[in-house]
Amino acid sequence: MITTLADARALDNADPLYAIRDQFELPSDVIYLDGNSLGPLSTPAREAVERIVSHQWGPDLIKSWNQHDWIHMPLRVGDQIGRLIGAAPRQTLCCDSISVNLFKVLCASLDQFPGHVILSTKDNFPTDLYMVQGIQKLLAERNIELKLVAESELLDAIDSSVCAVLVTQVNFRTGALLNVSALVEKAHSAHAALILDLAHSAGAVPVELDTWRVDFAVGCTYKYLNAGPGAPAFLYVAQQHLGKAVQPLWGWMGHANPFAFSPQYEPAKDISQFLTGTPSILAMAAVEGALKVFEGINLATVREKSLQLSQAFELELERRGLLDYMPSISPTNVECRGSQLSFAHEHAYAICQAWIAAGVIADFRAPNYLRVGFTPLYLSFEELRTAIDKLEHIMTAEIYLQSQFQQRQKVT
Amino acid sequence: MITTLADARALDNADPLYAIRDQFELPSDVIYLDGNSLGPLSTPAREAVERIVSHQWGPDLIKSWNQHDWIHMPLRVGDQIGRLIGAAPRQTLCCDSISVNLFKVLCASLDQFPGHVILSTKDNFPTDLYMVQGIQKLLAERNIELKLVAESELLDAIDSSVCAVLVTQVNFRTGALLNVSALVEKAHSAHAALILDLAHSAGAVPVELDTWRVDFAVGCTYKYLNAGPGAPAFLYVAQQHLGKAVQPLWGWMGHANPFAFSPQYEPAKDISQFLTGTPSILAMAAVEGALKVFEGINLATVREKSLQLSQAFELELERRGLLDYMPSISPTNVECRGSQLSFAHEHAYAICQAWIAAGVIADFRAPNYLRVGFTPLYLSFEELRTAIDKLEHIMTAEIYLQSQFQQRQKVT
Repeated sequence: MITTLADARALDNADPLYAIRDQFELPSDVIYLDGNSLGPLSTPAREAVERIVSHQWGPDLIKSWNQHDWIHMPLRVGDQIGRLIGAAPRQTLCCDSISVNLFKVLCASLDQFPGHVILSTKDNFPTDLYMVQGIQKLLAERNIELKLVAESELLDAIDSSVCAVLVTQVNFRTGALLNVSALVEKAHSAHAALILDLAHSAGAVPVELDTWRVDFAVGCTYKYLNAGPGAPAFLYVAQQHLGKAVQPLWGWMGHANPFAFSPQYEPAKDISQFLTGTPSILAMAAVEGALKVFEGINLATVREKSLQLSQAFELELERRGLLDYMPSISPTNVECRGSQLSFAHEHAYAICQAWIAAGVIADFRAPNYLRVGFTPLYLSFEELRTAIDKLEHIMTAEIYLQSQFQQRQKVT
Repeated sequence: MITTLADARALDNADPLYAIRDQFELPSDVIYLDGNSLGPLSTPAREAVERIVSHQWGPDLIKSWNQHDWIHMPLRVGDQIGRLIGAAPRQTLCCDSISVNLFKVLCASLDQFPGHVILSTKDNFPTDLYMVQGIQKLLAERNIELKLVAESELLDAIDSSVCAVLVTQVNFRTGALLNVSALVEKAHSAHAALILDLAHSAGAVPVELDTWRVDFAVGCTYKYLNAGPGAPAFLYVAQQHLGKAVQPLWGWMGHANPFAFSPQYEPAKDISQFLTGTPSILAMAAVEGALKVFEGINLATVREKSLQLSQAFELELERRGLLDYMPSISPTNVECRGSQLSFAHEHAYAICQAWIAAGVIADFRAPNYLRVGFTPLYLSFEELRTAIDKLEHIMTAEIYLQSQFQQRQKVT
């Protein structure tokens, strides 16, 4: 409950994560509810980039590949991410974009698993569906079918025709959280792979890839992992598929012996095979720096505060009567939600713009959702209450109808 | 001629590019002959990264996508690269790795051009061949053939069975420069595409993609363009193929209307279709900064100095009798070479290590080549002469036989 300012401050005083915020370089006049879209700059991330640029690339030049172990960064940073998603070492890589990585694991699944159907959800993140559609066209001879169902129909739709179940753990619009474990069990019983998109999960909700027996996963580092705009993504391949499942983007870094410069590709037997070209060392330095913030933090504590934040937010909107105007489209059961809530309103875009103008950054998702992200590492209950004060004013005074808030920008 | 120190200094005094070196943050105790592998840090590149991190991402967070026009960076930086490779605007993108971009243009070629043969050279850069081999396996039903010939046999090997001719303008081992224009003409007469890899060309030798009527090109920015380790690559698609040739990595950034979040992919009609996922803005900032060094520089002047440097180097090695021990494997005709020379020696790896220990950085390429890159923007004739002095000592005193120089590191 954050009915009063005193309530909010009491929650902040009891918050074991409160001090973590000092590691972030957030502007003082902003309340940031959009860490689910782009995480903020942290001091360790900034320093890691400076170190790579001015203390490695600058003075040590090409020698840095050995001297500063750049060559192992995709595996090293991959393992650091692995610790946050329940992956034992040597199964996770930091590289490329989430889309390119999804292409790799989709093709590897098609190679390893029977069935011709890629089963996914109607409301999956569009780019995940686009990647499948691109593969359908590319491999037209194989008649791959993309079957889309509602999240609630997934389990029933898994049968022997399915090659891979491709799901995003946390829905990007509604924030609904899937029961991955049940999906894996059903998929495996049908001899299908389970491919998990962790874009809105990694660093925000508990993920146990090894325990859940997920086959392949992809995710991004620029949301809850705070690694910067367009930061390199990650991918996970379960141990039992390594040396068997082969991805088709055969770049030199995935070769069994990359420095032999042999003219014939020979797939590496380990997770390296899922690398393709040379990755950006600068961009990966930001990932490595950003992950330092998570050192010593228990993700269960993060999850607990995330749910406290979203509950407090929802209850306070309800208490002030705001939910009557902008109903939540997110799960009512807190155990079934990720780290965000979304609210429907005809003028959601303009409301979001007016909120931003008032110093509260959230985002909008088509067609008419105001999306609010809860990021326990740097968001306080007092800030949350202030954000609600501002939202209430925007709604009751209909500030959002002002023309400057109605105009769409290129990036929504 | 750099027979005497006075000769070298006279050439430096007459060098119109001499002052450009001040823009690079090279260590004072290093002579860098490896800019063909990893270009050095420049002040504009360092400042561009700092600006993005501390003055955009930090304070402006998600708003930066509009406020600092991050969303157009792949096109904007692409066009900046385009100016250095003879490409009119809206045909070049900065994104992904060279390997991933090669996959895109190879698949687009297979979609648009008849024939089932990808024709390339036996000594093409291995990763280019690996990418074709990956496609052969992925599209097994299409029976794509990878035909490899010597560079001298390329023209004769182009016939109607060929779908695409995939060549690297400057050979990574020998530095030999291909006559692209003649290859394009022959390829087009056989209804084949010409795909050009500019990894060792961009920023080093004159490239005229539009004039030569090249169909597709890829290249990297971390060599002669000095954009940092693993910096984002670029790709070029000739105007006449835009809106027709479609690449299969269907990410949201290549969608005709990415912010509609529609569940069905619709390819953008312009060069954007060749984008896939969200690119690293930090890494692209380094590219944009690094390219500032080229502003106001005529690439013909760069080429002229490059040839002066390589000629002076070769002549001086010859005069000192060193070529008897380590013969050049590069073209003798200067017009047929890129911006590097390679020399064969049984102990090339150890010679390179000993040279590095003496403060001269070059590199080694299997099986037994010492590779020397000439980078006119920051290399002086006096440095070149000093480098030769050190090499002569290493060779005549057989320093390279010392055990510490014989041991191979992970990255050669």
